[in-house]
Amino acid sequence: MVFLTRRERFSAAHKLWKPEWSEEKNFDVFGKCANQNWHGHNYELFITVKGEVNPETGFVIDLRILGEIINNKIINQLDHKNVNLDCPFMVGKLSTTENLAMGIWAILFPEVKKLGCELHSVKIKETENNSVEYLGN
Amino acid sequence: MVFLTRRERFSAAHKLWKPEWSEEKNFDVFGKCANQNWHGHNYELFITVKGEVNPETGFVIDLRILGEIINNKIINQLDHKNVNLDCPFMVGKLSTTENLAMGIWAILFPEVKKLGCELHSVKIKETENNSVEYLGN
Amino acid sequence: MVFLTRRERFSAAHKLWKPEWSEEKNFDVFGKCANQNWHGHNYELFITVKGEVNPETGFVIDLRILGEIINNKIINQLDHKNVNLDCPFMVGKLSTTENLAMGIWAILFPEVKKLGCELHSVKIKETENNSVEYLGN
Amino acid sequence: MVFLTRRERFSAAHKLWKPEWSEEKNFDVFGKCANQNWHGHNYELFITVKGEVNPETGFVIDLRILGEIINNKIINQLDHKNVNLDCPFMVGKLSTTENLAMGIWAILFPEVKKLGCELHSVKIKETENNSVEYLGN
Amino acid sequence: MVFLTRRERFSAAHKLWKPEWSEEKNFDVFGKCANQNWHGHNYELFITVKGEVNPETGFVIDLRILGEIINNKIINQLDHKNVNLDCPFMVGKLSTTENLAMGIWAILFPEVKKLGCELHSVKIKETENNSVEYLGN
Amino acid sequence: MVFLTRRERFSAAHKLWKPEWSEEKNFDVFGKCANQNWHGHNYELFITVKGEVNPETGFVIDLRILGEIINNKIINQLDHKNVNLDCPFMVGKLSTTENLAMGIWAILFPEVKKLGCELHSVKIKETENNSVEYLGN
Repeated sequence: MVFLTRRERFSAAHKLWKPEWSEEKNFDVFGKCANQNWHGHNYELFITVKGEVNPETGFVIDLRILGEIINNKIINQLDHKNVNLDCPFMVGKLSTTENLAMGIWAILFPEVKKLGCELHSVKIKETENNSVEYLGN
Repeated sequence: MVFLTRRERFSAAHKLWKPEWSEEKNFDVFGKCANQNWHGHNYELFITVKGEVNPETGFVIDLRILGEIINNKIINQLDHKNVNLDCPFMVGKLSTTENLAMGIWAILFPEVKKLGCELHSVKIKETENNSVEYLGN
Repeated sequence: MVFLTRRERFSAAHKLWKPEWSEEKNFDVFGKCANQNWHGHNYELFITVKGEVNPETGFVIDLRILGEIINNKIINQLDHKNVNLDCPFMVGKLSTTENLAMGIWAILFPEVKKLGCELHSVKIKETENNSVEYLGN
Repeated sequence: MVFLTRRERFSAAHKLWKPEWSEEKNFDVFGKCANQNWHGHNYELFITVKGEVNPETGFVIDLRILGEIINNKIINQLDHKNVNLDCPFMVGKLSTTENLAMGIWAILFPEVKKLGCELHSVKIKETENNSVEYLGN
Repeated sequence: MVFLTRRERFSAAHKLWKPEWSEEKNFDVFGKCANQNWHGHNYELFITVKGEVNPETGFVIDLRILGEIINNKIINQLDHKNVNLDCPFMVGKLSTTENLAMGIWAILFPEVKKLGCELHSVKIKETENNSVEYLGN
Repeated sequence: MVFLTRRERFSAAHKLWKPEWSEEKNFDVFGKCANQNWHGHNYELFITVKGEVNPETGFVIDLRILGEIINNKIINQLDHKNVNLDCPFMVGKLSTTENLAMGIWAILFPEVKKLGCELHSVKIKETENNSVEYLGN
């Protein structure tokens, strides 16, 4: 069993805001992340898959195919977009890094399965100081 | 003459969009940066000042004071904000990294002067691949 | 279960030295880390907590509160200090990165518990080449 | 139980090429990594060992000794070398990062054992976007 | 006048070897870089251009066009290639980082000119410890 | 004329303290850097030399020789040492990064001259946020 990690990046806007809460409560809970006019990040995404090494190729997975899937299914929905408004799998959810990681997991898990591997981890680095990792349960 | 550089960071949303242009022309010139619903970055800001070393203190400048000025005058206008909508010195300008660097220069130049130093450079790293530097002329 | 990591930094002096050993034995075991007049590092501290995502907030934990705790309980005892002489929870211990990680764990574990989360890992990067991680057992 | 990680680096050439396959199949499977005249990388190697902290020294392991072993057994076979042609433990294998990690594990596992510790992980970062980790099973 | 820097990367093999010298002299001058079977690096390339900011676009240069030129003229000749054998503008030259920087300058200088800007600097980071910069004279 | 930069690192303790000043004044001017029991850093040192490329070797300078000089003359006086107490060229000076950079310049300038090159810059990164550069006048 070998673990392989691919890093991809996306630059996106978002805000943390609950319409059913007052402005005061939103700022109380979400702080400056509740800024009405949005803010944004250069997100770093680390996708780790695990599997046996194929003795024919020496690969756990073809990285080009994994990269294409991550780009088609995830990066294209997020890069130079607004997480809250533009990203189909985040609409109606709070755009916290935790929810983003779980949303990405739900999409990539079956895709990685099809390639004969298992998704092990979705890690998102929102800033150089803050990151979140989801292992699927 | 010694050069001293302070790094600060801000996470902001922006878009490149000219209201007097058609949507088509905006996308033609600005590409995905024209996304209507904004995108964003973790910007890194490098402020370099130059001056003689004060023999009393061994300092070109008191870094705590320089840091306070950068935070009060710049970071507070940009961090967790929208460059186009929230930042007083960028309103009405295209929010390119070039314009941002020149806008920051205009504010910090007289402030650094008051401290007995000279502003040498404003450098902004928008992503790990793209950065801009302005030296004042 | 989501894992959330916060990075904080501290710049501290220390030395590895056992008073009950001869100078020769100290240098034999600890090498240049035994330098009598101390040396120092920019330590990077990575605190990882794990927990369920609160459906109300989308957060595992309020990062501002976690950050305050790490700063109040740990960084303030270490930043711009001497690990051996100034840090209450390290006095009388060898200031190895291993002992530092276990000392930080002991302090943060109950604090994170109070927030409804679990401390998962304390990782310390002493230099770009050396790091230590403690998971509590 | 504490985990200690040592980073080492090596700059090496390699190619992915199976002599029993046609040129077409090699390029189909390995893409530009099949370039006949080789290409190369600055590999980063992260060796993680785990063990109890020795109460006498405060160490899991003497990092100088660990570093010497990694250099003698691994780095000297790879740094400024050709993985396919010069590295004794890779000859006859496909020089994928997966195989490299498993080859390094096989060599270091008994060496770390002799030091009273256990090898926990061999991680190799081939580029800033791609890395592989092997935990021994 | 604003300076804009674009980073690109390439992974390549090379060796330092002068056929008119003896093996002994080659190793004496070039050390382990003379390894017959090549070694390689993840090179980082930083291209800096300077120019006036276009008041219409807020840009010094269209980064997408600059990126395309760097990729078409430089990266495609070097990425996953052998600098000595595969790169047209390096054939017959010693593949030192100094010569590589000057070779890249010669190609990009007229291209950047056509875009209405001036090439300011070609910087190559060969490893995290070694880099070279060429400013054209 | 090509510029070549070599990075070296040292981990050292220091404090900013003027014996002729009161404790109050020391803390007023130097803040937490005046901590009596020292603090420390992982300093990064970037030495840039400039010169013509030797057509025989393709080198501005032999990096191994430059590295040896930096290590013998500078790193050995600073690594795992106390800047104030152990470093011959800093004794009696305030151990600010500015003074350190000028002290290193004074030592390396004639050494680089002997190698047929010119010292261009001494840059020291004290933390990820603060750095100083000295160009010799």
